[in-house]
Amino acid sequence: MVEEFRSKQIELAHGSGGTASRRLVEELILPHLRNPILERLTDSALVPFGDAGTVAVTADSFVVSPLRFAGGSIGTLAVNGTVNDLAVSGARPIALVCTLILEAGLPTATLDAELAAMAKASQAAGVPIVGGDTKVVEHGKADGLYITTAGIGLPIAGVKLDARSAKAGDKVILSGPIGDHGITILLARGELDMEADIASDCRSVWPMVEAIIAAAASQIRWMRDPTRGGLASALNEFARASGFCVTLQEELLPVRDQVRGACELLGLDVLHVANEGQFLAIVAPGAAARALEAMRATEHGAAAAIIGEVQEGAPCLEVVTAHGSSRVVDMLVGDQLPRIC
Amino acid sequence: MVEEFRSKQIELAHGSGGTASRRLVEELILPHLRNPILERLTDSALVPFGDAGTVAVTADSFVVSPLRFAGGSIGTLAVNGTVNDLAVSGARPIALVCTLILEAGLPTATLDAELAAMAKASQAAGVPIVGGDTKVVEHGKADGLYITTAGIGLPIAGVKLDARSAKAGDKVILSGPIGDHGITILLARGELDMEADIASDCRSVWPMVEAIIAAAASQIRWMRDPTRGGLASALNEFARASGFCVTLQEELLPVRDQVRGACELLGLDVLHVANEGQFLAIVAPGAAARALEAMRATEHGAAAAIIGEVQEGAPCLEVVTAHGSSRVVDMLVGDQLPRIC
Repeated sequence: MVEEFRSKQIELAHGSGGTASRRLVEELILPHLRNPILERLTDSALVPFGDAGTVAVTADSFVVSPLRFAGGSIGTLAVNGTVNDLAVSGARPIALVCTLILEAGLPTATLDAELAAMAKASQAAGVPIVGGDTKVVEHGKADGLYITTAGIGLPIAGVKLDARSAKAGDKVILSGPIGDHGITILLARGELDMEADIASDCRSVWPMVEAIIAAAASQIRWMRDPTRGGLASALNEFARASGFCVTLQEELLPVRDQVRGACELLGLDVLHVANEGQFLAIVAPGAAARALEAMRATEHGAAAAIIGEVQEGAPCLEVVTAHGSSRVVDMLVGDQLPRIC
Repeated sequence: MVEEFRSKQIELAHGSGGTASRRLVEELILPHLRNPILERLTDSALVPFGDAGTVAVTADSFVVSPLRFAGGSIGTLAVNGTVNDLAVSGARPIALVCTLILEAGLPTATLDAELAAMAKASQAAGVPIVGGDTKVVEHGKADGLYITTAGIGLPIAGVKLDARSAKAGDKVILSGPIGDHGITILLARGELDMEADIASDCRSVWPMVEAIIAAAASQIRWMRDPTRGGLASALNEFARASGFCVTLQEELLPVRDQVRGACELLGLDVLHVANEGQFLAIVAPGAAARALEAMRATEHGAAAAIIGEVQEGAPCLEVVTAHGSSRVVDMLVGDQLPRIC
């Protein structure tokens, strides 16, 4: 049964990537726009195309605040965010289009810097920006600069990602340390009397995805980049879609000391903190070791790890501590960090 | 030689679709992001794709104010604007993705109405919305609701659009009356003590484009939907790209009386007023009559007309009056009507 969307107005939490975002999508957007492709709610839509087979297509808007931060900027995010949504759908990113919503009065130097950042990220990812659009709104009607990118990708033959294909015993692989992006943005806002030597992990994950596909192809059940809402939101979505419980071993989670420290001080669960250069893969047990080895051999994959597994049980995310106790971690509730991407 | 972008900040005129927009693109955006596809500056990018041939891809952001107006709304525009950019590139629109930037505090009823408008436009155009994204920014950091749509299209075999293929003697075909959208928005703002029985022409032009392609295919040199900046900006771009002069016969231009009257009162040149459901085609002379006949047979094409022709001469748009005098009409300068789409 479809629940009705009961909020009378839109709140920041509806952009969090957590439960409120999911309600907005499932209870308001899907009932209007539903079709067999959209309702899959995957990172990219796989669209039948001519005699060609399939095109992966995706779009994201970026409203991060502040515009620049250690390790990246809104332009870097806009390119890599869409590249990564294609990558974790098992599609080679082919091209991007990009739109700018500019606030009148925006210094040209700010826009120039973001165009340079986009050009650099586009070159680094090997994905050209082939078109776009620019709109300008009055001063006070936007917040400097919003960027939207859409992208097309070529689905890789032999890869068939579907949470429903998961089986008990499948392994959960994470590409590297979590929480870097979210904590970096929080610190960049300057509202906290705290400094840490930390930078956003914003980058293309395609080289790592390409490696795991080469190693494990049809043995990969599902992939996702845990951005807004963090690892916990992504794995709760997987649990819900697959019907399985996901169990993580807390001591196996790669987390930098600075991120762990900041989370403790701020009372944040690192499992809810956003990432922009990591991805999760659920892989059949027989292929997990070679998938991990392939990822570790890539430039940014050295810290990749098997962090848990898929188990029979009510769909949820269970985290087991080093002491053997366990806790259930839900999707992000509320708006932990608005405008994180 | 590349001119340098000399504005120190972004102004509303940079979103007008006229000369300032063109400067922003040519002098700031292209130098950063240039590649062989982007620099064509066509409505959609034609991207080589796998063994499949080519995918047409495009994106537009919509910031129209007010959100709703006679004949449409931001949701209607967002769907049809992208469908039309694909259509006038000679590509059958296949699917859209859509992102929403919402201001916290936006009434759910407003969003609900726009989702309904998008669903209706998507069904009318026969193009599903297959994916997307939602972001929320703080109250005061946006203006209710911005929508970005991107789309993919299947290029129709035998159609090869390139302004540089134009020849002297080619005919200029316009699909129907101009200025309806721009004047509707202006009236909807309620700043003028004027009423008129006029509605936006916002709709998919694909049925008309499909008809002209079936009739004239390889004889079509160029197409464009004259949105922001109007007919004059679109034809000046064609003139510049083709190296030819375009001559229009003013008395052949379909313009509704209400639009003509409003333009006279307001001192606007209807050639600069935005359209959302019309397109221009440059067609070889031998195919023009059957192209026109095919367009007129479609539901919204009854007023289609041959309005002028391509001539040798310095690249410009020349408009000849019924009395035989003529004037050169440039691209739109300044920001005649900010946030028209």
